[in-house]
This record gives sequence, structure tokens and C-alpha cells, in this order.
Amino acid sequence: MQMPEPNAGILARKPRIVARLREALGEGGVIDDGIELRAYECDGLSAYRCPPLCAVLPASTEEVSAVMRICHDEGVPVVPRGSGTSLSGGALPTADAVLLGIARMNEVLETDYANRFIRVQTGRTNLSVTGAVEADGFFYAPDPSSQLACAIAGNIAMNSGGAHCLKYGVTTNNLMGVTMVMADGEVVEIGGAHLDAGGLDLLGLVCGSEGQLGVVTEATLRILARPEGARPVLIGYDSAEVAGQCVSDIIKAGILPVAIEYMDRLVIQAAEAHVHADYPDCEALLIIEVEGSEAEIADQLGRIIAIANAHNPVELRESGSAAESEKIWQGRKTAFGAMGQINDYMCLDGTIPVSQLPQVLRRIGEMGDEYGLQVGNVFHAGDGNMHPLILYDANRPGDLEKAEDLGADILRLCVEVGGCLTGEHGVGVEKREIMPAQYSGDDLEIQMQVKDVFDPKWVLNPAKVFPLDLSAGRRM
Amino acid sequence: MQMPEPNAGILARKPRIVARLREALGEGGVIDDGIELRAYECDGLSAYRCPPLCAVLPASTEEVSAVMRICHDEGVPVVPRGSGTSLSGGALPTADAVLLGIARMNEVLETDYANRFIRVQTGRTNLSVTGAVEADGFFYAPDPSSQLACAIAGNIAMNSGGAHCLKYGVTTNNLMGVTMVMADGEVVEIGGAHLDAGGLDLLGLVCGSEGQLGVVTEATLRILARPEGARPVLIGYDSAEVAGQCVSDIIKAGILPVAIEYMDRLVIQAAEAHVHADYPDCEALLIIEVEGSEAEIADQLGRIIAIANAHNPVELRESGSAAESEKIWQGRKTAFGAMGQINDYMCLDGTIPVSQLPQVLRRIGEMGDEYGLQVGNVFHAGDGNMHPLILYDANRPGDLEKAEDLGADILRLCVEVGGCLTGEHGVGVEKREIMPAQYSGDDLEIQMQVKDVFDPKWVLNPAKVFPLDLSAGRRM
Repeated sequence: MQMPEPNAGILARKPRIVARLREALGEGGVIDDGIELRAYECDGLSAYRCPPLCAVLPASTEEVSAVMRICHDEGVPVVPRGSGTSLSGGALPTADAVLLGIARMNEVLETDYANRFIRVQTGRTNLSVTGAVEADGFFYAPDPSSQLACAIAGNIAMNSGGAHCLKYGVTTNNLMGVTMVMADGEVVEIGGAHLDAGGLDLLGLVCGSEGQLGVVTEATLRILARPEGARPVLIGYDSAEVAGQCVSDIIKAGILPVAIEYMDRLVIQAAEAHVHADYPDCEALLIIEVEGSEAEIADQLGRIIAIANAHNPVELRESGSAAESEKIWQGRKTAFGAMGQINDYMCLDGTIPVSQLPQVLRRIGEMGDEYGLQVGNVFHAGDGNMHPLILYDANRPGDLEKAEDLGADILRLCVEVGGCLTGEHGVGVEKREIMPAQYSGDDLEIQMQVKDVFDPKWVLNPAKVFPLDLSAGRRM
Repeated sequence: MQMPEPNAGILARKPRIVARLREALGEGGVIDDGIELRAYECDGLSAYRCPPLCAVLPASTEEVSAVMRICHDEGVPVVPRGSGTSLSGGALPTADAVLLGIARMNEVLETDYANRFIRVQTGRTNLSVTGAVEADGFFYAPDPSSQLACAIAGNIAMNSGGAHCLKYGVTTNNLMGVTMVMADGEVVEIGGAHLDAGGLDLLGLVCGSEGQLGVVTEATLRILARPEGARPVLIGYDSAEVAGQCVSDIIKAGILPVAIEYMDRLVIQAAEAHVHADYPDCEALLIIEVEGSEAEIADQLGRIIAIANAHNPVELRESGSAAESEKIWQGRKTAFGAMGQINDYMCLDGTIPVSQLPQVLRRIGEMGDEYGLQVGNVFHAGDGNMHPLILYDANRPGDLEKAEDLGADILRLCVEVGGCLTGEHGVGVEKREIMPAQYSGDDLEIQMQVKDVFDPKWVLNPAKVFPLDLSAGRRM
């Protein structure tokens, strides 16, 4: 993975640029010290690192606007950053870019239960949005694994999902409006605490646009009433194909659990070693959770268990208490961390039609064998959002590149079977060069022309999303 | 409401244009006879009429592509039309435009229960999508009042909702992918039977774009399992404000019924005269429906009835049978027709934050009095989607214009209280000139630039959505 050469002219103008930013934000709002900048040199895709020209930490929409006006005027790229948990390198800086960190802007601006929304500054973390309303019985539905750390800004940029999005939808289904600072510093409102709006759906366009169209500083989010109860069931199978078939049959029966999570043997063993979740030793583990009143839970779980039993599970365990539920989920929620304990890994994020699960899982295993790399699978099976984890050794020369090649092959497979390159992590730098597997040159040209409309100078988060050779003529 | 002068050059070239279209579609695919064209001179906004240059009825995506290639080449505007039920004049032709009717393309292309989708040609009517899957226990959720007649093509163009969208979302929440013919005839696929996708969310942008970006010929739609049961409760109040407060309190309590419908006295009386639904004689009637298992229905209705009773209803009647449920709904479902029996009316479509219902209803009444026009209200209260019906006399000179002015004032009021100009009917020609009440000149310029990207020659559905003076330099 390569990044473009930094612009020497910008590097030369650093003192002036920093001085202008300091004038706008004050001393504490701008970081240009080499050591301190190390905190911003990478995001969750930590295989790639590059300190930015400088970092700014605005405290208000007005300050974000001031930063954008200066950078637009100076012709300096801006890389927006939420909490820096992106797994696709969406917040990876370039050496000639100003990194715009939104984390200081984390206030709740308004809660309105009658209209079921909360308005927050987008530096607020995902979990603390729910935290602000849970005492009143409400919650914010999208729940990325990183929800303790990740910011709403990044959730909007990547259209983030999570384990419970099978029922509640992803960010775009729960976002009602934004305040956005345009590339030239203009502040606009898109959407709001109402249904739909006339004209083109620019809110839908902005959600998932990976910081290419503007910097979202405030968001109006749909909140939901917390269900009365929830209960998971844990089901183990001795083959990936049978587990995939079970998921497919549940969906086909029209049942919509709140989550259907899948873990394969490699991940089960890692999670087990990490938190002793008491998982069975098997090829494939499903965690299926349903929500609602006690009657509804019993009814739905009854139908799910009947389908699961028809496929002869090696284990089927319905949670009998809150403590058991927490234990069942703990292994899943810490699975990524557990895998990180045993190896370096690259986490992919493709989606496929649910019915393709069995054959795609088999094919991923075969492809791993061909490359001589182990691949673990832990993902949101209910909506076909795969997260293959490719294990590699960062200290062995060539291993990262081999893992990248295998990753690209797996994502191409997702597209071939009718899926797509990313479900919730975004394209970032990680999948930038394989976008042509899904989109023709004309498709990508149209997308870049839409970016032209919002950001004619390509100031915002350049060298991401679009293949470098295609965007070369547009980037500064 | 004015439309631009037709292009004389196009009118002069009509014989050649018709001949080229006949060559591509065959004799039966092109209508240019003056009498036959009357069938296409208006849509559901029947106050405005204009026969098109000619009408084409393609039978396949390839034929749609051929039509667009010819029209793009000839520089002729194209007005796409589903079933012609638009209430905002979205399918209103101009005299120099080719009307492209998609109604012949109504096949089911694929049903896939394991992946919970159906793929259809977009000329298929909304209700017949559910018809294709209901024997297997599934349904398609968005349910516009016109669902017996309206086409999926129009549902996508207007991002249509319906009474049951409070729980299930509107079209954009149930649309997974489209096949779209671009302005120059190129055929593209956007989205598909998978979650999300990399790059910009062009599917979100296309949904609700009112035929401005392309002609959608095939759609992949999310289908859901039919709930076990459903039951409405009918609640009458002697004041609009109290009814609005009741709705607000239900939403605030976190209850999410599948529908909360509102009718005022004028509409209640018209519906009662029309179908004898046995509605009480009161100021405001709510129909609230919940779905699920019997236990879930009982639980939710219990909580709703407790809240409703706290506001002292003049009547509260829980349905006791399928026949009673049908009777309760029949009055609501035929309310628009019933109003049409007693008067000409103009149906508005603004949305507001739910908590603003009481004051907006009061203000609408006052504004009607000021204009000397009666206004009926029947709408989706749960999501704040208002449908004021302004009664006027089409045969009294000046009455239509007065109704239009009152309508514009009411929609401006919706924007003022934090809502927007349209919930599900679209902008079309009806709200074109009041878009500046919601959007600044810069906002509209950005939206038009996005159209430029998809349709540089502005061939598609011109003179709609954007104020005529703003789009003048772009239209042919």
C-alpha cells in the first residue's frame, strides 16, 4: 500500500500554516511537536503510520470552520479524525496534511424524548450517546465493537454497524441530521429532527462518505426505547457449512433476531483462552440474541431452537440468567482483542448475500491454505457482514504483503458472489486500490464528480477511497 | 404554477423523433395520437395538465436504454412515469417531452427468502409486490395509500412512505439495489442483495431523487416476515391539542406502534358519510395499530390505552375481531376519496417534529380561517408526516391560486417549526417554487451540481424540484 509523495511546497510553508491555525484556535488547539504528533500517526489500521504536518483540536463548529477556511485558502489537505479507531485507515494522515481531531467536541446538545432524538457533538463516543439517555430507558442502536472508544463522527463517516444492527439497521438508518463544515469552511445543516426532506437526499450521501464531502460536527440521532429484556442462545456445529445453513434457514423463516454472530474454531479457541467464556470446542459457534417481552423472547427462541436442532448441533445452550448472557457475549466482544494476543492480524470487512455463507466460508479456508496463512472468522452472520481475520507475522519480511494479497482476493470473492467490498469499516486506504473489483471506471468517475461538487479542490481526506491513479489529476 | 415554454425546435422535429422511437420500440411501444396522449397529460396532481410530445411504453431495460439514447442524442426532455399517482406533479409532462411510462415492465424477476429480498421490474405496483410473496408469509413494508395503483418506480422516485412506516421505515429503508438507465442510455447497477457498499452511497442519493438522476427499471427490495397478528385501537378526543399530546406521550414513552393515524372532524365526517365506519363525532380521531404475537399486542395496547385514558378520550374502542379491525381502517384508507366526494381538494405533505403537532394543528386552523378556506387533516401522526387537505372550488376563479398560497404558507410553517416541505409526496412541480423556504441558494446550487454529474444535459424530468429561475441556465 503506497501513499502519494507529500507536497514539498506545503512542508516548506508549515510555519506560516501553523501560525495561522494557532491564531484561530489558540496555543492549546494546535499540535506541531514531533513527539506529540506520534499520537496521531495512525488509526486502527496500525500497519501504516505517518505523522501529519500538524494536528488541530477545535472546540466548536466555528473553530472547525476556521480551520477549513485556512486550509482551503492555503491549499493544505485536511484529514478528519474521530477517535482514530478506523480499521481501514480512514484517519491515516499524510505528511502534508493537517489532522483535524474532533474528540474535544463531545457535548450532548439536546435530548428530546417526545421526538425520540438526541443531538450531540460528533466527537462524543458511541457508547456515551446511549449513556446520556439510558437512565430514561432509551438507547442508540448502532453498536460497533469499538463502541467504548469510537466517535459518532467516525460512525457517520464509515456508516458503522455492529452486532445488533440486524434488527435496528446501521448508522444511516439511525441518523436524522447533521451540521457539516464544507471544504471551504461554510457551515451547513442537512436533514433534522423530521422525516425525509425535499430535493436530493444529501444526508444519505454524506453518511458513509468517509470524510470526503465535509466535516460533520453535530449529529441528530434517532434513539429507541430499551426493550424489556434480551436473551442469547449459543449453538455449536461441527461444520461451517451446517452453521451457515442454520443462519440461512432462520432468516428464510422470517425470524429477525437482534443479532446472529458467528465464530470459527480459531476464534473460539482464542476467545476461550482469553476470557474462559465456556465455549464448546467445535468448528462453528453461533450466538443468536432475541429481544422483547418475556413472551416474545420465548416465542422467538423456541422457533430458532427448533431450526437449530434440525441441523444437529454439538451444543445448544440457552442463557438462563443475566450472568450467563454476559458470559456468552464476553467471548464474542473480546474476540478481536483475543486474536491480537496470539498474532498480528488484518481484519477484513466484506459483505455477501446470507445464502452464500457456507460456500464463501469454505472457499476462504481453501484460499488461506493456498497462501499459507491462517484465517479466523468472526462476524455478523445475520446480515452477511463477514470479518475474516488474516493472521500474519509483522516481523517476517513479505508477510504483510502476502496477507494484503489474500485479503484482496477474499474481498474480490465477496463481490463475485453478489456482495461488496465493505460492510462497515469503509474503504479508507485499505481497499482503495481494489475498488475497481466492484466499480467500473465510469462508476468511480461519477463518484469523484460528486466529490468535486462538495470539495472542488480535493482538500478533504485525499488519497483515500478512490484508486490513486484515478484521483491523481484531482488531488493537490 | 407555471411551466416553461416548450422548445419550438423540438416540436418541429416531432416526426423524426417519433420515427426513431418507433424504430427502437416497434409500433405498439410509441403513442403519438392526440386522443390517446390524454391518458398521460396529468398525474395525481390533476389541477395541472399538458399532453407530452409523445409517450413511449418500453418493455425492457434495453428498450428504456434505447429511448434514453435517442432522446439524449436529440436533446429531448424525458419525463419518467410509474403509475401516474404522484400528488406533487412528479410525472406531469411538458409539451416538448417524451413521457416514458414504465407500467408494462411489471415482472417479478427473483424471490429469495434466504436472503429476504425480491427483485422486480419497477412498473410493478406496490401491493402486487407483497402479493408475490404473501403466500410464503412475507410482505413488502412501505404502504402508500395508493398502493393498489402506485408503481415501485414512483415509490423509489418519491421515497414513498405509508401508514405503517412508523415501524418499518420508508422506501429508502427497504430498498437494497437498483438497475438504473442513465440519461445517456448507459445501464448501471447500484447496490444489491447485500449490506452497504464502499464509496459514496449513490443508492441513498437515487432514492427520492424524483427522476432527476436516471430511470430505475429494476429494484431489489427487502421483504419481511408477516407478523402473527395486528390490532388497532380507535381513540377519539374533543381537541386537536389533546390528541397531539397523546401521540407525543406515546412516542415519548418509547412505544413504537406500527401506525398512528390522525383524522380531524372534517375528515371523520366525510369518511363516515362515505363508508359508515362507525367513527365517533369528535374533533380528533387516532387509529393506533400494534403488531406481533398475542402477548406482545396485549402488552403494547395496554400501555397505549393507559396513556390515552390519561387524556380523557371521548371514545376508546379496541378492535375485538378482524371484521372490526377492517372497519376501523376502512374509513382511514378511503378518507382521501371521501374528501374528494365532497369537494375539490389539494393534499399537502409536510413533516414536523412530533412534539409540534398540537401547535401546528391549531395554527393550520387559524390560517385556513384567514384565507377563508376549509382545511381537513388526515395524516401519519407517529412520524409527524402531515397531510393537510385544503378544500377549494375548482370552478370558482382564483380559488385554486388561493389554495396554493395557503398551501405554501402551511409548508413554510412546517419548516419554521423544524420540519420540512415534504414527507413522501415529493417536490415535483407543486413545491418547486417554495424550496427556498428550506434551502439557501447555495444548498440548491449543490443539489443541481449533483444532478449535473448524472445528467449533464438536464434531459431528465426538467422543470421539477428546483425553482425555475435557478435551473433556467441549465435546462435545455
